[in-house]
Amino acid sequence: MAGPLLVAEGDRVAVAARRVMARCDELARVSATSDAIERVYLSAEHARVNRLAAEWMRELGMTARQDAAGNLVGRLDTAGAPDPDAPALVLGSHLDTVPDAGRYDGIVGVLMALEVVRLLRVPRADGDGDGRGFVSPLPFALEVIAFSDEEGTRFGKALLGSSAVAGLWRDDWWTLTDADGMTLREAFVEFGLDPARVGEAARRPAELVGYLEAHIEQGPELDDRGEPLAVVSSIASARRFQLVVTGEARHAGGTPYDRRRDALLGASEAALAVERICRAEHHVIGTVGRLEAYPGAVNVVPGEAHLSLDLRGELDERRDAVWGSIEAELDAIMGRRGLRWQAREVHSAPAVFCAPLLQDVVREGIVSTLPRGGDAPTTLFSPAGHDGMSIGAVTGVGMLFLRNPDGISHHPGESVSTADVALGVRALAESVLQLASDRG
Amino acid sequence: MAGPLLVAEGDRVAVAARRVMARCDELARVSATSDAIERVYLSAEHARVNRLAAEWMRELGMTARQDAAGNLVGRLDTAGAPDPDAPALVLGSHLDTVPDAGRYDGIVGVLMALEVVRLLRVPRADGDGDGRGFVSPLPFALEVIAFSDEEGTRFGKALLGSSAVAGLWRDDWWTLTDADGMTLREAFVEFGLDPARVGEAARRPAELVGYLEAHIEQGPELDDRGEPLAVVSSIASARRFQLVVTGEARHAGGTPYDRRRDALLGASEAALAVERICRAEHHVIGTVGRLEAYPGAVNVVPGEAHLSLDLRGELDERRDAVWGSIEAELDAIMGRRGLRWQAREVHSAPAVFCAPLLQDVVREGIVSTLPRGGDAPTTLFSPAGHDGMSIGAVTGVGMLFLRNPDGISHHPGESVSTADVALGVRALAESVLQLASDRG
Repeated sequence: MAGPLLVAEGDRVAVAARRVMARCDELARVSATSDAIERVYLSAEHARVNRLAAEWMRELGMTARQDAAGNLVGRLDTAGAPDPDAPALVLGSHLDTVPDAGRYDGIVGVLMALEVVRLLRVPRADGDGDGRGFVSPLPFALEVIAFSDEEGTRFGKALLGSSAVAGLWRDDWWTLTDADGMTLREAFVEFGLDPARVGEAARRPAELVGYLEAHIEQGPELDDRGEPLAVVSSIASARRFQLVVTGEARHAGGTPYDRRRDALLGASEAALAVERICRAEHHVIGTVGRLEAYPGAVNVVPGEAHLSLDLRGELDERRDAVWGSIEAELDAIMGRRGLRWQAREVHSAPAVFCAPLLQDVVREGIVSTLPRGGDAPTTLFSPAGHDGMSIGAVTGVGMLFLRNPDGISHHPGESVSTADVALGVRALAESVLQLASDRG
Repeated sequence: MAGPLLVAEGDRVAVAARRVMARCDELARVSATSDAIERVYLSAEHARVNRLAAEWMRELGMTARQDAAGNLVGRLDTAGAPDPDAPALVLGSHLDTVPDAGRYDGIVGVLMALEVVRLLRVPRADGDGDGRGFVSPLPFALEVIAFSDEEGTRFGKALLGSSAVAGLWRDDWWTLTDADGMTLREAFVEFGLDPARVGEAARRPAELVGYLEAHIEQGPELDDRGEPLAVVSSIASARRFQLVVTGEARHAGGTPYDRRRDALLGASEAALAVERICRAEHHVIGTVGRLEAYPGAVNVVPGEAHLSLDLRGELDERRDAVWGSIEAELDAIMGRRGLRWQAREVHSAPAVFCAPLLQDVVREGIVSTLPRGGDAPTTLFSPAGHDGMSIGAVTGVGMLFLRNPDGISHHPGESVSTADVALGVRALAESVLQLASDRG
């Protein structure tokens, strides 16, 4: 079977990395706003990037289809088993973004996956010379999935795309609404999808060899260590809550402090309490990303405040214990201020541990890019969530992290170097070859 | 001249109070939202309430016109001096509201003013019997002004309507924008007003005898004392600021706390500092009514936060000293967190002291409603702002406060009793008669 073919092919890898970077720039222009990047689930921009990426898949000789949840699925069958149901190794990541996003989070993983297919594909034996006659030379098909919703920006529920693929879709999500009050169900229909058919996006374990994803680190660890790539050991356990604090809206002038039940001040204390409690913990991190006060008039004491809480931890138990501490502290704060509070959990995902076999092949892929005798690759836990959190329910997951300068992500200043992308493409391709070899 | 006519006319006053309450209900239905009261400057609802109130003015025999800033001005000339430029005593308040408002703030004062006109007017000597032939029997004309913008809800700048009447309009306001990005200038044109003519709304001191306003207290003081009415001694000194806190948006999972510059946490500390500093003061009160975090995604550390600050004090000097303390505290907070902050002052008004003569006539008006030998009426300072803050620049201001149960205002639960409105109508009418007598 295929060996480490790529070592001698540095030029092809460098070209691949430059193409990845150019396409990241091209996709960055597909945005809901002209001055920033924002591309959310089931939007016109979502449809446009799927069309672009489908074209790129077809240029590689892959079939490309949009699944029943808006994910884009490209496939290159194997020569040996042209059965469309033959097991596939899935490479991928997501194409949606947060508001005012960078251009690499998720996106670079999808585009690197396409370059890995380009490096590994071989002409079909019966190729008709039209340039589209390519197959996988490996003992499994190659798929690239561009997940449609990982960030959860639009409906407040993350991993919608990969949840559909993993068969984890839940009917109570249909009534989730976006900021304009449109339900997920209505957005499906507007996008041209049939809510009744969402189950058809689900894949069975038997169809899948595993899932490999390359992603920028979204943290400063590799940059601090001066290393370009890392193996991921596990993806954070995560819970998300919508908190509502209720007091009483009153006139800002006439209401003495001892008559106020100011929901914004309670929410402010809550945000600071989350920081204080999580700072004291190891590997649990909590963030309040949204806070709004109502009615939101300059001269009215806020009667209600809404805030989001994003809580992550390496271990489910520790994360849940921290939530317990936060609950107790919120009871105390709100009690002192005569406020009420409630939390609605909108997302919960256990920690996902990467499959040992896939951690090994990713590690060997990285080693193939290092000078002989170098240090072993670093292994990192990922506090950031990834599509693999859902996909882990149907197949083994392996992840490769790329150095992210200063760890800036979810921000226009997010970056990754072309040189690191080249190393990453090579490592990912070598990982796939290693997996093929191990199964061969 | 007219004496205390009204004591024997309790039935007319009771009818007047019931009409005020019914009309408050009627105006409450003129709202931008079906489930709450919201009526902002230069909106369709503003036009509708002006049309309704103009009709009510004309039914009383007044002329009614909308001035160059959208204020509604009704006038009843005197029999003795039918000169349209003869000095007028102005009664009034405002018809705009905060979001999710009550139905009495401002509105009750306009409607009480109309009832005072109804109680005081006399048939024109040469009346033609069409029911519209009424004049003021007093040595001055009577005007009722329904101010178009007191709350400042739409453009973040309060007292726009009365500022125009007082000749205080400033050209740099034209570029103020509402939440949809529409400028004040554009809103003027859309409403059918000519920005170039706003100066025509200004009144000269020689045209005015004074300004009397009835208003709910918007605080619990009268309710706590068990008294229905109070004389107002002064209206708070006020400043309003828009604060922007700038940090860095980063990924909520991957960014360790020591790498975060979280603008929302800085803003939360700022809101709590405002409370802490003002609580320690006497007669200075600060409120953060708005707070938003950007980009506002559940999984992004906020890179920017916007908050409003409303600062009021009995005395300008004390208010400014408190702002100095707040500035110093914000420097300390933001310095600790690696954040920057800036403030833009969007409103500033000095404390306005009610004219001693008008305080006296209001006090005598209230006394006329009390049992003989009762306690002297309470005099209160008003931490809430009122149209008189602007009008004080062109004429003397007097104010009458009505008891506001539990002090709830700027809230749907805002209330005033029909009995207190009846006492207020009587006191206000007696105040006008007293003023006429003093000048007679």
